[in-house]
Amino acid sequence: MNFKDKLDSYQKKINKQLDELLVHDKPEVLYDPAIYAVNIGGKRLRPIVSEIFYRLFNGENKEVLYPALAIELLHNFTLVHDDIMDNDSLRRGKETVHVKWDLATGILAGDGIIGLAYKTLMKDKFDRFTDIMEIFTDGVVEVCEGQGFDKEFETRNDVTYDEYINMIYKKTAALLVLSCKMGACCANVSDELINLTGEYGKSLGIAFQIQDDYLDICADEKLLGKTYGSDVQEGKKTFLYVKAIELLKGDVLKKYLEIIDKDGATREEILLVKDMYEKYGILDVAKEEIERYVSIARDVIKRIPDTYDKNELIEFTEYLLNRKY
Amino acid sequence: MNFKDKLDSYQKKINKQLDELLVHDKPEVLYDPAIYAVNIGGKRLRPIVSEIFYRLFNGENKEVLYPALAIELLHNFTLVHDDIMDNDSLRRGKETVHVKWDLATGILAGDGIIGLAYKTLMKDKFDRFTDIMEIFTDGVVEVCEGQGFDKEFETRNDVTYDEYINMIYKKTAALLVLSCKMGACCANVSDELINLTGEYGKSLGIAFQIQDDYLDICADEKLLGKTYGSDVQEGKKTFLYVKAIELLKGDVLKKYLEIIDKDGATREEILLVKDMYEKYGILDVAKEEIERYVSIARDVIKRIPDTYDKNELIEFTEYLLNRKY
Repeated sequence: MNFKDKLDSYQKKINKQLDELLVHDKPEVLYDPAIYAVNIGGKRLRPIVSEIFYRLFNGENKEVLYPALAIELLHNFTLVHDDIMDNDSLRRGKETVHVKWDLATGILAGDGIIGLAYKTLMKDKFDRFTDIMEIFTDGVVEVCEGQGFDKEFETRNDVTYDEYINMIYKKTAALLVLSCKMGACCANVSDELINLTGEYGKSLGIAFQIQDDYLDICADEKLLGKTYGSDVQEGKKTFLYVKAIELLKGDVLKKYLEIIDKDGATREEILLVKDMYEKYGILDVAKEEIERYVSIARDVIKRIPDTYDKNELIEFTEYLLNRKY
Repeated sequence: MNFKDKLDSYQKKINKQLDELLVHDKPEVLYDPAIYAVNIGGKRLRPIVSEIFYRLFNGENKEVLYPALAIELLHNFTLVHDDIMDNDSLRRGKETVHVKWDLATGILAGDGIIGLAYKTLMKDKFDRFTDIMEIFTDGVVEVCEGQGFDKEFETRNDVTYDEYINMIYKKTAALLVLSCKMGACCANVSDELINLTGEYGKSLGIAFQIQDDYLDICADEKLLGKTYGSDVQEGKKTFLYVKAIELLKGDVLKKYLEIIDKDGATREEILLVKDMYEKYGILDVAKEEIERYVSIARDVIKRIPDTYDKNELIEFTEYLLNRKY
């Protein structure tokens, strides 16, 4: 079985477990949209990496790893509310909750999902239950902080590289950090090993987000499944943006900011921005930076004692970072 | 010191502890509105009753009872999001978060507050930490369900008495139930005693909500601090409403529903509704029902062994139910 097929089978298993976990209870106005949101799908990468670490550290064989499902619910809580905040009407080709129902339902469904996430977390009392709760809750707060920074950056044109990295660390990487740490914590290994998995999650998460920013303008549109250059259109403060305002000068910078700051950008303008990114080495810097964070993640894997079988983790890492969209 | 003064001093203490707990961190766009929302104030009844039970059961003397502060944060999380869902622009005379800032900030601030609530809960590892987490989380889900039922009832004209009681149990009483149970659980008493405090919280909460519905049309406007008869204006499905559609007949019922269903109601119409409530015994039924639930709460107090000093709890109960606004 190649790794793609393996991931697909993990994803199906998580989907089935979520199906069994989430019951269409009353009031329908709460549970229907909450379950709809979770069923929109996604790659389920967070519970999958959590389970990979759990297995790696020889955690007992459990039919359902509830903390992994709780992580996926936490992720979906952030998506439902972010979609409202960002005014997004589609997610994976389906109407977002606040569009399919209404604003109040979107808020309530998100709130219900975070409640259910904690409820799920408590279905299994692991030895290190308190630590698991703490890792999870730190993640909840960090994700909110990340969303806050992202929001704050919308109105700023002087976001620095360090600020950007801190933002994506909280907004994207924090959930991967907690996924890795919780998997290790459920397997009851030492704090040192748990923190090591956190370092892996951090590097992987940052690499993943920079790659996301890169692919938004470099991926094949058909594979991407959304409009090419949407970050440029929305004037998002991405990795490419912070590097552009650092590396572009004079008229080129002026033209760049003009396109970014305007509401929407034409196809031609997006291509012009892509040219600038290419010509002034910004895409190269992005690739180097992705590679740098991937190297850190690979180094962390090496620091995990070889007495553990690390093959699956290595395959996962390489698979994730070789994506083309 | 009379009990009102005692409550005031408890309230001040809780406010001071919340001040010390919540630090104006970054991003400001998250922490400023979150702290603003919590500082709007309120009676802090939930943490106060939690501490009353903790003391009653001889819990060790602790400077700060973090679970009590977590309960107040949970309450504020629901208020911030409810204000958006209900489109309310004022709370205790101050602008609500989504009005003072914007919608996205309101959603994010609420999300941040529930994260901080869990973080606060984890500051102290009580013997029964797992039970405390479970009681708290059950409450989070129940409050969401209660808000869901309330929302569902907006579009229904056939809400029954049982449905109404179930709704206010979840929307209002559940937070009191968890406050009482968590106080007892922190003091590490038997499950039997913890459940007894839950029964007290349930009866008190339901009595309190029916009283709220009653006072909305019967209280002195100046004391009430909001428009008299606002429930009639908004067509809310209150205790008085479910009893009215049960007890009013023919033309009177027709006229009643006409006033309730229209957008807004004049002063004269509100007075007419009040007359109907009076003439057809609906206010009497409300008073009987409040008394019935208060009696249950008083009975529960009697069932707590006399070896515990119950005076403060008795004073609290009587004080709360003698309010005139």
